[in-house]
Amino acid sequence: MAADIPSDHRISRRISTGRIDLNVRETGSGPLMLFFHGITANSAVFTPMMAKLSSRFTTIAVDQRGHGLSDKPGSGYEASDYADDIAALIRTLDRGPAILVGHSLGSRNSVTAAARYPELVRSVVAMDFTPYIETEVFDALEARVNAGNQLFPDVKAVETYLAGRYPNIPVDAIKIRAESGYERVDGGLRPLASPEAMAQTAKGLRADLTPAYREVTRPVLIVRGQESKLVSAAALAKTSQLRPDLPVVVVPGADHYVNEVAPEITLRAIVNFIDA
Amino acid sequence: MAADIPSDHRISRRISTGRIDLNVRETGSGPLMLFFHGITANSAVFTPMMAKLSSRFTTIAVDQRGHGLSDKPGSGYEASDYADDIAALIRTLDRGPAILVGHSLGSRNSVTAAARYPELVRSVVAMDFTPYIETEVFDALEARVNAGNQLFPDVKAVETYLAGRYPNIPVDAIKIRAESGYERVDGGLRPLASPEAMAQTAKGLRADLTPAYREVTRPVLIVRGQESKLVSAAALAKTSQLRPDLPVVVVPGADHYVNEVAPEITLRAIVNFIDA
Repeated sequence: MAADIPSDHRISRRISTGRIDLNVRETGSGPLMLFFHGITANSAVFTPMMAKLSSRFTTIAVDQRGHGLSDKPGSGYEASDYADDIAALIRTLDRGPAILVGHSLGSRNSVTAAARYPELVRSVVAMDFTPYIETEVFDALEARVNAGNQLFPDVKAVETYLAGRYPNIPVDAIKIRAESGYERVDGGLRPLASPEAMAQTAKGLRADLTPAYREVTRPVLIVRGQESKLVSAAALAKTSQLRPDLPVVVVPGADHYVNEVAPEITLRAIVNFIDA
Repeated sequence: MAADIPSDHRISRRISTGRIDLNVRETGSGPLMLFFHGITANSAVFTPMMAKLSSRFTTIAVDQRGHGLSDKPGSGYEASDYADDIAALIRTLDRGPAILVGHSLGSRNSVTAAARYPELVRSVVAMDFTPYIETEVFDALEARVNAGNQLFPDVKAVETYLAGRYPNIPVDAIKIRAESGYERVDGGLRPLASPEAMAQTAKGLRADLTPAYREVTRPVLIVRGQESKLVSAAALAKTSQLRPDLPVVVVPGADHYVNEVAPEITLRAIVNFIDA
């Protein structure tokens, strides 16, 4: 395991994939491991985990379309749009197949990419997003996502808002979200994530994910936070019925935000899976 | 995946490890994958699965001490004795680290070997044996094991006995057990497995397995049959509390004998895990 060298979440660069320009954060060397964040977040949320993996992997976290400093087209926020971005990125990097580590939206996108482009994907760590998520869970998620579209007077106000929205995420990880996810505008700070893109993305999350899970042939590790309000125990059980061969890790004490709330267990689960 | 070439369960050879001579069945080429059977069984139970893995792996199934055609010392049937045999075998083969696939007793032995000799083991598929198995479950197992020490008039009688003892194992797999696990003696057929070794081994299964699970650093995939009477849902849940980072596959419709009852799902789970 790498020494605890922080990967600076403030350093990023843009990659032109041909179909879209994506902002990424990169550190380390070795096999390619790509990270895809959840809705409204950005690549910086993975920098603590990347620092611990950088001695063994080329870790690259991506601001997905509509998020962070990446391109924000006016439309095109379905699973296939995000997955095609992943494929274009791996082809541009020209060093696949890649290990995909995705959280929430990023998990949905990673499994979709693996199902559509098995030749580009080595395996997927699919954190806290499965098929069979209930309609009322999506309703609550959509309301939370759209409520994030605010003007904040300063970073402290952002941190207070985020700490309320994510009560189990530790202070350091909240700080990373606050520092990386907002831009200065007249009158204060606004989310970098495009409100229109977030609204479309939230709607798109409701699409049936069973075909991608049924079809994916690459190895997928399903990770669920034991206290997740997004992936219920029932949704996970149905997913395991659909694909009984896919291994499952349930992270005790973690809610939906497994990698930020329980980074040590999540890290060990990822390394175990990749080293098998 | 390999074509469905049967690995002939009647062909085996002996390997001298220095500490013990072990009878093995081998097929295929590629990274080393070793198979360890449950109590009273032998290496032949894995031949159908080995045939499907032989295009990608050097698969070697082992008659463990006291079983099949391997040496049967008068004593020495604790976890450490079996695990030290595994280490000696991998050293003798001189092509480790090995992937260990173990069922029941073989699962206990494989995890113990991985904990004691991490440098010799790449990863473990641990099928239907965990810490926290209840005392009454061991009582029932010990009674079943000791009841197998019988003289059978012919192979049909053996098959009838085995079909009653393993009601969910398909006919073809029962036939393999019947043909591979018995020797002709005056008056009929007797188990190849030594009754004294079985009695000691059954007692040894009761030893606390939590230290090995706590200490093991190599990747372990925990596989449980959803209808297993050996590993209860409660024992699995406690094991996941002990090692929340270890991935779990629960095989629907399978009892304790996951690889014989549900070979397709078991095979896909193993390949997924190894390919990640």
